Amino acid sequence: MTATAESLFVTVALKSWDVWLTRLDKILDALTDEQLESPVVPGRNRAFYIYGHLIAVNDSMIPQLRLGDPLFPEFAETFIKQPDRAATIYPTTIQLRQSWKDLNRQLSELLPQLSPTAWLERHATVSEEDFAKEPHRNRLAVLLSRTSHLSYHLGQLQLREK
Amino acid sequence: MTATAESLFVTVALKSWDVWLTRLDKILDALTDEQLESPVVPGRNRAFYIYGHLIAVNDSMIPQLRLGDPLFPEFAETFIKQPDRAATIYPTTIQLRQSWKDLNRQLSELLPQLSPTAWLERHATVSEEDFAKEPHRNRLAVLLSRTSHLSYHLGQLQLREK
Repeated sequence: MTATAESLFVTVALKSWDVWLTRLDKILDALTDEQLESPVVPGRNRAFYIYGHLIAVNDSMIPQLRLGDPLFPEFAETFIKQPDRAATIYPTTIQLRQSWKDLNRQLSELLPQLSPTAWLERHATVSEEDFAKEPHRNRLAVLLSRTSHLSYHLGQLQLREK
Repeated sequence: MTATAESLFVTVALKSWDVWLTRLDKILDALTDEQLESPVVPGRNRAFYIYGHLIAVNDSMIPQLRLGDPLFPEFAETFIKQPDRAATIYPTTIQLRQSWKDLNRQLSELLPQLSPTAWLERHATVSEEDFAKEPHRNRLAVLLSRTSHLSYHLGQLQLREK
């Protein structure tokens, strides 16, 4: 297998990430502040919460890929650990939109820096001992998992009343 | 990069496919016939339609991966080309559940047969000429795209009223 072939695996995975991120970005960008405040379907999470949740989960990729510290560590508490409407303070929609942009810029700089070999190295939440036995628990697995996480919530946002 | 490393890319991609397929299978299996007939959220597609749509799209992977003919070609007309409630005849829920099982068995036999090199070969809907210029339009891209398609609809099914 040539170097080109090796890098093709990574190219395809990064392209898939980009495709779903772009689709999501388009939808989130089109939602007004009022629409963000409404539940996606009656009685369920607000689009606002899903927006913050996506920022929190994608931001957590930075430490999980061992690429540094998250930009918005406080989002994890509000948008992952707690359900919607449980926190006492939420960011404003302006902060949310800016955080999403800043994070996407940061990820678009960090992700292409990893070599094919680096993508096959362990992610942060598996020990070196376990990784020796389960080498599929690598950075690439994190990227694929987070890509499907994007499409999972995109599917939900698409169910909003038009 | 060693042969083990090459195959790891494929292992991770197939594991991701399996994870989302298993999650979906669990949810679809738990839905009663009555629940399948109800729209996922008021006014939108029935779970039944999403079920058939997932069969049709996953079945279309077989020809798209150049691995043979689809098992249920007639599903594409009913569950991809036409929106929900537009067809005059639908399969029964028994047929739907059996088709899902048969298809998953077939895919679980076919997909592991492809070598890492074969995953980087072109998929059926790109010409050899275009593929020479865009080598990322390969079988792996189809697998990743279909994996995120699974999670997209899983997200929607999870919004059903509990």
